[in-house]
Amino acid sequence: MPKSSICLMPFIPGKHTLPLFTIPAISEKLPLEIQSKLDQKTKPQGSLGDLELIGKKISLIQDTLQPKILNPTLFIFAADHGITHEGVSAYPQEVTYQMVLNFLQGGAAANVLARQAQTDLKIIDSGVNHDFEGIQGLKNRKLGKGTRNFLKEPAMNEKEVSDCLEHGKEIVHEALSAGINLMAFGEMGIGNTSASSLITHILTGISLDDCIGSGTGMHSEALDHKKDILQQSLNRFDHEFPNPSLMDVMRNFGGFEILMMSGTMLEASSHRITLVVDGFISTAAWLIAYFINPEIIHYTFFSHLSGEKGHQYQLNFLGVKPILNLNLRLGEGTGALLSIPIIQAAVRIINEMASFESAGVSQKDKE
Amino acid sequence: MPKSSICLMPFIPGKHTLPLFTIPAISEKLPLEIQSKLDQKTKPQGSLGDLELIGKKISLIQDTLQPKILNPTLFIFAADHGITHEGVSAYPQEVTYQMVLNFLQGGAAANVLARQAQTDLKIIDSGVNHDFEGIQGLKNRKLGKGTRNFLKEPAMNEKEVSDCLEHGKEIVHEALSAGINLMAFGEMGIGNTSASSLITHILTGISLDDCIGSGTGMHSEALDHKKDILQQSLNRFDHEFPNPSLMDVMRNFGGFEILMMSGTMLEASSHRITLVVDGFISTAAWLIAYFINPEIIHYTFFSHLSGEKGHQYQLNFLGVKPILNLNLRLGEGTGALLSIPIIQAAVRIINEMASFESAGVSQKDKE
Repeated sequence: MPKSSICLMPFIPGKHTLPLFTIPAISEKLPLEIQSKLDQKTKPQGSLGDLELIGKKISLIQDTLQPKILNPTLFIFAADHGITHEGVSAYPQEVTYQMVLNFLQGGAAANVLARQAQTDLKIIDSGVNHDFEGIQGLKNRKLGKGTRNFLKEPAMNEKEVSDCLEHGKEIVHEALSAGINLMAFGEMGIGNTSASSLITHILTGISLDDCIGSGTGMHSEALDHKKDILQQSLNRFDHEFPNPSLMDVMRNFGGFEILMMSGTMLEASSHRITLVVDGFISTAAWLIAYFINPEIIHYTFFSHLSGEKGHQYQLNFLGVKPILNLNLRLGEGTGALLSIPIIQAAVRIINEMASFESAGVSQKDKE
Repeated sequence: MPKSSICLMPFIPGKHTLPLFTIPAISEKLPLEIQSKLDQKTKPQGSLGDLELIGKKISLIQDTLQPKILNPTLFIFAADHGITHEGVSAYPQEVTYQMVLNFLQGGAAANVLARQAQTDLKIIDSGVNHDFEGIQGLKNRKLGKGTRNFLKEPAMNEKEVSDCLEHGKEIVHEALSAGINLMAFGEMGIGNTSASSLITHILTGISLDDCIGSGTGMHSEALDHKKDILQQSLNRFDHEFPNPSLMDVMRNFGGFEILMMSGTMLEASSHRITLVVDGFISTAAWLIAYFINPEIIHYTFFSHLSGEKGHQYQLNFLGVKPILNLNLRLGEGTGALLSIPIIQAAVRIINEMASFESAGVSQKDKE
């Protein structure tokens, strides 16, 4: 198995030449007020555990003691990747567009879980290798018919990177018009674990090997082949970009869906929208956003720990605990959807639970 | 700190003189059919992780390839404990009845989370030390105004134990009439972590120290005092019952709410009702049911890992993984309620997701 290159945190969050996106600072006073409100509820202090932490975080995101979740929506970004020509996925590239059609027909896991979570679904064609003309319900933000093959050349050019971020901004402006204040993020793109592995490795310094999992389900020889292709792609990059910028990472390995997610996440947090990140790929997109402006972490929930190997390393790197751990490794925002009722429950606790005084319940008489 | 007595698995599940409750066996053929149905869905095989396991389990419980959850309901059993006279809880005994009133008024955490989970709530007075006459909405199955103080004598007599199991049967028959096929279990009873610690220790052999946590929130000296009282209670029991039967454990330490839960769980599983267990106390009630008839495990979901120390040991003893891990330690069925949307999501996956064939999606082309 090829060794990964040594790469210890060459990037520093927030230190680079890309526009920063202005993310509002979190109140310093509010945490005490929220804690005081929670501590008057009819329960032992702290006994709702993570639910209290989630509720507090949403209050801080919305800068209020009465947070509300409005029109929660899962955005699924779909695109194709030139690297699939190298046989890095268990499924053929055509599955990307077929699954887009499945989303539009309501038959995919994300549709089913969105119905359970009473969450809207928006499907965005960021760059799928298929002509969807005449198909209803798909948001067209296509930047190409898939990226170029990053084994041989950068996956996209700087203009395409900027366009991804720009489209992200527009998606958020539409969401604001629709009264959405919670955005969950999912993706569909055969080959996008490969792109995410390289992005994660280069930005965080986590070893390439730790960043590579079986994706949609490859084992043994096929997995070794994937590792070999990614190591060769990294060698090309290291050779062509000995002192890479964040832009270099983005344009070399970014998928259209990945970078459009990054831009959407950044713009959304700048409008105090709550972000719900799914698994390995959406966390890779989020990592790009984090390196552009680390303040985004205050606006973000990591919904679940994916079964895809690199996700645990990403979350460890960030020192965050996901809400769920259900061994999912499907993508599409499935983990994000399952976490939404828990986030909503946390908001309800802040708003709806009685206080000791209002309910006439005695308080603790010993410690 | 007092040492716990050594007690290695003195009880064997299913081997005792109590009536067994007849729990139907799980189909041996169905697991393969369910797996085959899941593997035709538009997702990599196994990629929905625990959600697939939950869906399979419900299918087996209901013995069908089209499982349905009907009228999911949380039953909160409330009762008082004589042991509270020894100062084993951070809260005074009156909090039990005050919280019952809070449930009836809709202000407790369980009410809030039940609304989020679209789950009905039934509050059962199994033996609260309060006269609720004229109060609407409370199910009256009161067996006394709290149990006796188990530091000094058995908490109840054999007739009261049998009455608890009998009431459990009747509760299930009412639930069946109401078309309920998923029952979640919560409790309210100041002092009931103490009862649960002793029940868990004696039945499983987990050390008494590992079974004692801070309950509603006691620390340092108060916790040491609790441990001392429970050790003394155990000494009395060991002295009076050198060869204890399961009935002896139940009548010495059972709370009315705990044993009524045990009976309800057993009767429910005998009717193929899905059981959703909450934290430390409802797992102690479940353990009694398990020692009466271990087949109950096939009908049970453990909803979450509680922050109450002994719960992790209970789950380790059983070798089961809970659905959630949110550091809750409130009781009332709060963890069970949060798990219900996930269980419902799993059932929807079985019923609503498209197959590769129906959606026209290509299958895997390499392993």
